[in-house]
Amino acid sequence: MSFQGIEEAFNRISNVVNKTAVMTSRTLNSLLNAKIYFKCENFQRVGAFKFRGAYNALSLLSKEAKKRGVITHSSGNHAQAVALAASILGIKATIVMPKGAPTNKIKATKDYGAQIVFCDNSLEARSQITEKLIEKYNYKLIHPYDDNDIICGQGTAAYELIKEIGELNIVIAPLGGGGLLSGTALAAKGLCPEVQIFGVEPSMADDAYRSIQAGYIIESTYPETIADGLRTSLCERTFTIIQKFVDQIVTVSEKEIINAMRFLWERMKIIIEPSGSVSLAALLSNKINTKNMKVGIILSGGNIDIAPFFQLLEKRVVQS
Amino acid sequence: MSFQGIEEAFNRISNVVNKTAVMTSRTLNSLLNAKIYFKCENFQRVGAFKFRGAYNALSLLSKEAKKRGVITHSSGNHAQAVALAASILGIKATIVMPKGAPTNKIKATKDYGAQIVFCDNSLEARSQITEKLIEKYNYKLIHPYDDNDIICGQGTAAYELIKEIGELNIVIAPLGGGGLLSGTALAAKGLCPEVQIFGVEPSMADDAYRSIQAGYIIESTYPETIADGLRTSLCERTFTIIQKFVDQIVTVSEKEIINAMRFLWERMKIIIEPSGSVSLAALLSNKINTKNMKVGIILSGGNIDIAPFFQLLEKRVVQS
Repeated sequence: MSFQGIEEAFNRISNVVNKTAVMTSRTLNSLLNAKIYFKCENFQRVGAFKFRGAYNALSLLSKEAKKRGVITHSSGNHAQAVALAASILGIKATIVMPKGAPTNKIKATKDYGAQIVFCDNSLEARSQITEKLIEKYNYKLIHPYDDNDIICGQGTAAYELIKEIGELNIVIAPLGGGGLLSGTALAAKGLCPEVQIFGVEPSMADDAYRSIQAGYIIESTYPETIADGLRTSLCERTFTIIQKFVDQIVTVSEKEIINAMRFLWERMKIIIEPSGSVSLAALLSNKINTKNMKVGIILSGGNIDIAPFFQLLEKRVVQS
Repeated sequence: MSFQGIEEAFNRISNVVNKTAVMTSRTLNSLLNAKIYFKCENFQRVGAFKFRGAYNALSLLSKEAKKRGVITHSSGNHAQAVALAASILGIKATIVMPKGAPTNKIKATKDYGAQIVFCDNSLEARSQITEKLIEKYNYKLIHPYDDNDIICGQGTAAYELIKEIGELNIVIAPLGGGGLLSGTALAAKGLCPEVQIFGVEPSMADDAYRSIQAGYIIESTYPETIADGLRTSLCERTFTIIQKFVDQIVTVSEKEIINAMRFLWERMKIIIEPSGSVSLAALLSNKINTKNMKVGIILSGGNIDIAPFFQLLEKRVVQS
């Protein structure tokens, strides 16, 4: 794992991933007396940075592995990312999903041409079915973050951001399993060695914060934070990178996450999901000192179920 | 009124307005077999194109008029646009608003430093109070669309779009009072004479469609369409420009507006208000043939009350 891996990933995938927009907010900059640059990965294909890692990892498979196909267990953005990357590369993808997964996510994954296998709603059930299928068909497991090629792919978002904006004093990314944060840290420290890297996680899912304090991995107990993308635990690979390259881990409350998300929707007019809003939550609640600094923030994704809002709207129209 | 007015407006205001992003959607382009370019005026200052016209018009006031101050009656995006433009130019602004105006709009207008005068909720009450204040203080009335400088300012959105993307076959804009559509038509036909211009209005507020058919202005009866920015009537000035430069007026249902808005939120991850969604509504309901064409769409703004959605979210968090 090195900066070179990020550069290679960037060269490998940059014709297929979206070069996402970098946005700023006058209001926020004057509020914080800082220059904040948002890397808008909600505009990435499948609506989240996950496509970067998935496409990088799948591109690097051997010809034989590509023929046999890939598998992953996820009900979130990683599933859709693997499904789309596989479809582009002509690889068969199997996604193991819990029976209760949201129908819009099931549909999106199917639409990308992946085969879905349902399992009971427990981590064990998922792993068991996945292992069985791997044994039977020799599929390659694409782990959402315990994989160097995934991590290098995720790092290309920060790489693009710094290449576009220039040197930054601080870079902030959400922290769940640690794939995005690891890639971000490697990319940013490679391009500007003096940069400070912050990871942000929900207080309700502060397993990484406690792990770094303890010096060993403390597993997450699948907490019910609204930031559903950040419920997962670190693995040895991401733990080691974060220990070495991340300067500080900050936690934010559910209320702070929602407030930050609302700022992004109302003031910046972009749809960001709760997991993508934690970095701004840390800034708005003054947990990171950014005064007079140039700050990069990875807005990791925009996949949130907006059906309830549109049901309210439609009711209004029908009534009128 | 001429193309030259648009170019001059562009040169006058381009250092102060946001050069808003142009976005595309792979899904939409493949669905329609066309190239659709969205000019994202939801990212404009105050969240809508209205700032372009307001800033242009206020810049052009005489020194004396600037000293006396400006006035307008509006509870929508034009009010906020005038308030911000006035604040930047150091002009006193008075906004006449109905008592029942949404509190978030009142607050935003106040935050820009404008003085708000409340009136009863009828068009007559508004006009009466406005005229009284003009008589007393000699304020300059800034009409939301019956004003050449406003129209030229609004046209700079299409001007920027075509300067960035190159020649287009079709340009589509929402149609309420006709200021944006008039400016858009002048700008687009000035830059590419062969372009076809479409205006889109809600079926529930089809006064412009009927006016063009009839050959004279038929007043809108302030209809309750969800596209609240498009409830106003044409004036002679915009009627004449639209007659001359707009190729066709298309109407869309409330349901079609909501579907288009949902596409923009869910697939493109941007917040667009109902009035801004009508152009896409016309495309998604196959009312404009765009096959194999390059099409520009003005997404006019993103100011919609999202409080109900966040109330739902907060309830979810409190319950968990």
